[in-house]
Amino acid sequence: MPSAIGGTGEEKVAEVTLTPVDGGLTAAKGFRANGVSCGLKERDIASKDIALLLSEVPCETACLFTKNEIKGAHVPFDISRADNRIQAVIANSGCANCLTGPRGEADCTEMVSLAENFLSLPAGSVMTASTGVIGNRLIMDRVRYGIEKVCNLIRNDSNPAHFADAIQTTDMKRKHFAAEFSLGGKRVTIGATAKGSGGIKPDLGLPHGTLLVFLTTDAAVSKPMLEAALAEAAELSFNRISVDNDTGTNDTVFLLSNGLAENPVVETKNEDWETFRVALTHVCQEIGKLVVKDGEGATKLTHIQVKGALTDGDARRAARALADSFRVKTALYGQYPAWGRILAALGYSGAKFEFRKLRVSFNDLCLFENGEVNRLNEGGAGSELIPNDLKLTMELGVGKKEYFLWTSDLSVNYVKINSNFLS
Amino acid sequence: MPSAIGGTGEEKVAEVTLTPVDGGLTAAKGFRANGVSCGLKERDIASKDIALLLSEVPCETACLFTKNEIKGAHVPFDISRADNRIQAVIANSGCANCLTGPRGEADCTEMVSLAENFLSLPAGSVMTASTGVIGNRLIMDRVRYGIEKVCNLIRNDSNPAHFADAIQTTDMKRKHFAAEFSLGGKRVTIGATAKGSGGIKPDLGLPHGTLLVFLTTDAAVSKPMLEAALAEAAELSFNRISVDNDTGTNDTVFLLSNGLAENPVVETKNEDWETFRVALTHVCQEIGKLVVKDGEGATKLTHIQVKGALTDGDARRAARALADSFRVKTALYGQYPAWGRILAALGYSGAKFEFRKLRVSFNDLCLFENGEVNRLNEGGAGSELIPNDLKLTMELGVGKKEYFLWTSDLSVNYVKINSNFLS
Repeated sequence: MPSAIGGTGEEKVAEVTLTPVDGGLTAAKGFRANGVSCGLKERDIASKDIALLLSEVPCETACLFTKNEIKGAHVPFDISRADNRIQAVIANSGCANCLTGPRGEADCTEMVSLAENFLSLPAGSVMTASTGVIGNRLIMDRVRYGIEKVCNLIRNDSNPAHFADAIQTTDMKRKHFAAEFSLGGKRVTIGATAKGSGGIKPDLGLPHGTLLVFLTTDAAVSKPMLEAALAEAAELSFNRISVDNDTGTNDTVFLLSNGLAENPVVETKNEDWETFRVALTHVCQEIGKLVVKDGEGATKLTHIQVKGALTDGDARRAARALADSFRVKTALYGQYPAWGRILAALGYSGAKFEFRKLRVSFNDLCLFENGEVNRLNEGGAGSELIPNDLKLTMELGVGKKEYFLWTSDLSVNYVKINSNFLS
Repeated sequence: MPSAIGGTGEEKVAEVTLTPVDGGLTAAKGFRANGVSCGLKERDIASKDIALLLSEVPCETACLFTKNEIKGAHVPFDISRADNRIQAVIANSGCANCLTGPRGEADCTEMVSLAENFLSLPAGSVMTASTGVIGNRLIMDRVRYGIEKVCNLIRNDSNPAHFADAIQTTDMKRKHFAAEFSLGGKRVTIGATAKGSGGIKPDLGLPHGTLLVFLTTDAAVSKPMLEAALAEAAELSFNRISVDNDTGTNDTVFLLSNGLAENPVVETKNEDWETFRVALTHVCQEIGKLVVKDGEGATKLTHIQVKGALTDGDARRAARALADSFRVKTALYGQYPAWGRILAALGYSGAKFEFRKLRVSFNDLCLFENGEVNRLNEGGAGSELIPNDLKLTMELGVGKKEYFLWTSDLSVNYVKINSNFLS
């Protein structure tokens, strides 16, 4: 439901004042979205599985795709349309249409052609995405029915919550966010919806389970400036989240800009571009955190911050070693302040550190400093790990470089979800 | 019990005929071992926690230690004795004595001094090892009692099974193996015991949970030849096993050679050295497989073999991507032939492959070839995953390089064990 989409008060991000608003993917002017069911998910045949995003007018677009060498059929298809102006995206869940050969490619092309026909859009103006189990072919009879249904429905009814439902696989919650801000004297909006809960590694692409992100804006921004802003925003958001260590085959981020806010078109890296970049980064970070929070079986969103590193690479290596460690992740699940496992992960990360200057803290409580555990704080640290949101800070004591990322814990339910193949 | 230690028939390894024998760590002439309890394990205060290995005469030794920058106190201590002839190793479980500062170093030194005194051995002739929770100090009153007890006990009673018990933490099973073979006209024996169940990554060292391996032999081999053989054997065994992706702080492999078999001393890389190397490799592989089988919560020992790679590095990268993937490991646990997840892991491994020539097989059943799934075989593949031992082969189709390793699955019990901090 649109009413489920956040929106409480203003928040200041860098120099940009953002106001969260309702409406998610359709909060920006001129975007409509909806989702229907056509029976692609074995686990729940009635759940929604075909999603459609439509703009009143063609959009400038920027996209990011998985770096996995094995790619779902939609990835090369969308890349072949990367220079086009795009007006709609048709997506399905329940089947990744990956490793399905030439017939899978034909199915992908047919999905898009059907949407173009039913929506009376010119050829080349629709992109597509799939998510679900790898290796199965789409059941095209059902897909055809679903695409016709959603294209008819969207004429009279826009429902971003149903869109969000229709792209989910193992997701437990809808993930959407939107915010408005001032750009070139106009109020502009960026909206977002994502799916993704497992198979998330900070190196876009991300998984089976797949990260799919749909970003919409009514801001007028040229394609090169849109691409530059998305690259920087993704580096500080989708590349900073970790659920497990798998990089997916179908991960895609779409950013569509229809310009209906009528701000002066952002065509260079001027002050307006900086404003847009900061706002986009914030929206992407909020969505990224929702993905981690809804990570398969996740019970903790942990903000890992490494400080005092000698190089950027060292800061990143140390943070990722913590985020990828099975033992650190299971300790978070157990709500145990396992500073020993944390230091052990640092020890094999390859990052330089000065042992006597190492500091490890949960929230504001320092557990390890001056080469030894702080036993006094250790006793109280368990309670710092009870909330679902927590911060883990590690100071390396050899420089000034920093890196952060968000990670989930590794729970019993993660294993249950991932060893059960009905989804 | 010694009777629990394997021994059925001969097996041919390369050009060496090995006969498995009973006795584990004490199968070789002149070695005694035992273990006692002194109350170091909170979970079970009565379980054994102090282990002692003793040779009748001083030994040439070769050791391998963790590469983690954070090291347990015993690691630098043992390294300082690396050039000595060693006659005994005193070990404890229940506490890793890691990140315990100068007082931890003093405790480590005291453990060894006590053993030297009680056994009337010269200073410098004893090494030591610890395994258990990181960050806790040893309860030295109990340790002193335990060391005195085991040193008294070993005079009249050798019990390698009790030694194996006393080095366990989250291990469920004793892990020991011994075999004899002919060397320079004499029958010689190599025996082994290990502890280690979680925190195992193929890059010696390995974890909290720690891999500790004790290897004994009565073969007469010079120290340089012993070190050369151990390095090669470890590369083909302990560096080829994977439980989780954590590298430990305390991992150590000890190899003690007392020469009591009276074979001509192996002093160069001659034919005898090659025989010894092959035999040692086999013993280390058998022990390594036992470690994976007893991996925390493990239900599957999977032999991963990558063939047809362009380079050695590519073969290794592809095999490790599979072994480290949360999704592949949970699929093994679910007994599901998830060739899609396997190919997705290959896709982000960085290894080169030719898609049309890719082949993925479980045991002898090929699931993926010629660019598509073999649906006929897929139906039957589930039953290939039911046994506790299975083989997963992947052909990359671009060269002739190969790599293998053994991995465990990722189970619900892995998470339960690692999120519970009483061990």
